[in-house]
Amino acid sequence: MNRIQSLFNIDFPLIAGGMVWCSGWRLASAVSNAGGLGLLGAGSMHPETLREHIRKTRLASQKPFGVNVPLLYPDQEALMAVITEEKVPIVFTSAGSPKKWTAFLHDHGIKVAHVVSSAAFAEKSEAAGVDAIVAEGFEAGGHEGREETSTMVLIPSVRKATSLPLLAAGGIGTGMQIVAAMALGAEGVQMGSLFAASEESSAHIDFKKKILETGEGGTKLMLKQLAPVRLIRNPFFDKVEEAELRGASVDELKALLGRGRAKKGMFEGDLTEGELEIGQVASLIDTIQPVNVLIEQLKQEYNRTLDQMKKLNSW
Amino acid sequence: MNRIQSLFNIDFPLIAGGMVWCSGWRLASAVSNAGGLGLLGAGSMHPETLREHIRKTRLASQKPFGVNVPLLYPDQEALMAVITEEKVPIVFTSAGSPKKWTAFLHDHGIKVAHVVSSAAFAEKSEAAGVDAIVAEGFEAGGHEGREETSTMVLIPSVRKATSLPLLAAGGIGTGMQIVAAMALGAEGVQMGSLFAASEESSAHIDFKKKILETGEGGTKLMLKQLAPVRLIRNPFFDKVEEAELRGASVDELKALLGRGRAKKGMFEGDLTEGELEIGQVASLIDTIQPVNVLIEQLKQEYNRTLDQMKKLNSW
Repeated sequence: MNRIQSLFNIDFPLIAGGMVWCSGWRLASAVSNAGGLGLLGAGSMHPETLREHIRKTRLASQKPFGVNVPLLYPDQEALMAVITEEKVPIVFTSAGSPKKWTAFLHDHGIKVAHVVSSAAFAEKSEAAGVDAIVAEGFEAGGHEGREETSTMVLIPSVRKATSLPLLAAGGIGTGMQIVAAMALGAEGVQMGSLFAASEESSAHIDFKKKILETGEGGTKLMLKQLAPVRLIRNPFFDKVEEAELRGASVDELKALLGRGRAKKGMFEGDLTEGELEIGQVASLIDTIQPVNVLIEQLKQEYNRTLDQMKKLNSW
Repeated sequence: MNRIQSLFNIDFPLIAGGMVWCSGWRLASAVSNAGGLGLLGAGSMHPETLREHIRKTRLASQKPFGVNVPLLYPDQEALMAVITEEKVPIVFTSAGSPKKWTAFLHDHGIKVAHVVSSAAFAEKSEAAGVDAIVAEGFEAGGHEGREETSTMVLIPSVRKATSLPLLAAGGIGTGMQIVAAMALGAEGVQMGSLFAASEESSAHIDFKKKILETGEGGTKLMLKQLAPVRLIRNPFFDKVEEAELRGASVDELKALLGRGRAKKGMFEGDLTEGELEIGQVASLIDTIQPVNVLIEQLKQEYNRTLDQMKKLNSW
């Protein structure tokens, strides 16, 4: 039982990221029921929608679960009120300062993990008193760092910077990659893309099929001048790329993005005009499966890879 | 003894990349003498300079060594003539088609590894008959792929695409990262940045010191419209970034780059006007050491990490 398992009271240290338009009660409860930690993605929910998803998660699972709150969210107070009223046990915060809500959440007996893309922010998170760090590399769909530090380099950097329990995220979708993350110093992983394409994901089926089709070079970190996000290539992507290559202004990019693009693409299945957010590991995902099947496969791959590592000779 | 060790007849599967302006006879012979495989970086050598370095490497070491030939090199025929005349046992080719020289080199009894940045090029390399693949991720200093696939995602992709002996490169500068690469399916690693900053590297001391100062976000993959290369931020970098952000043309970027920028920065130590190529892992490098000390540290880290992996429980 490692520190991540103890902290969240889960069977193995696997967290399914709380993704906008993907992570509703079906996905969160399925992951928790399988022995990992499921997160609801509050970033795409009105506060009362979040309340409904929390209650449905509890009906579908007795296991611990959490909520991801991106701190770009306009009405954070209302979300946090729902979270405390409903006695959610775990909150992952991202895309903002860990100082903002950590003490408040701790006062309500809630465990807090904060998502960072650099060792500098990991240090700030530790100073803010969070219980765990998620270090998320350049490969992730929701990567927020302008430094573009990949998981291979980020995890050892963050491991040197903090002694807190550490989860790796970004580019992880197989058991081999989970073992690699552990070798780099992580004590568990947060995975997104694989679960975005699962049966229980609330994403539109056409978006899920698009994830399966996505091959090498099929995603790219875009909109770095606004909030960086990794997108699947589609006609909307092409417009953004064209604008960026000719040096479009921040205002022009904002106008091009407009509002509701992610909902349009990921939830409504508009593969032409929608914004399709996914991690680079999409290139390794080729079937839509129920969560319990996916997790069983991950466990087998993890165990097999660990066995192979145990056979390696010292240098 | 794994396939990489057998193929190159080395004590452990660690290759020091053949880097322009860094990898002369001192570095290559030191790595080979320590039990890894040292490569000469022919990309920055005239053919007769390469001949001199090959002969000096042989005087300094009885162990196997190789030459890296970037296939952008203008007078490849002359380089290959030197390589065959001097009976170099191993050649790593990069930045071009593996079909071009593999059969020729094999006819002269030379082992061939080819560097790729995608699974698609790994398949082409296998079809061309190479003996081993180096899969080099987005993190690398010399990364050539426009797909920006990181090592964490690239190695499992390439492992699925080919059954050839596989080396991982990009983002690797510590023993933890070597173990991670092995978990991802590699059978060894090629490392550059750490050796660029070693005592035996032929790079200018001021460039080496600049590598030590490079922190998180201190490098970025630039000039993607010409040949992508990862650069340290300096005044020259700033000019390129400014030009790229305002959508400069390929011709303007070529004029800005000019000729001899890498030599100026890395070999002559002009930290203002020179091009400073290095991998993202530079942020983890903080001392200039002799190669034998570096390799001893890597072995200790590798062994310690492997021992930790052996203690992990199955899921």
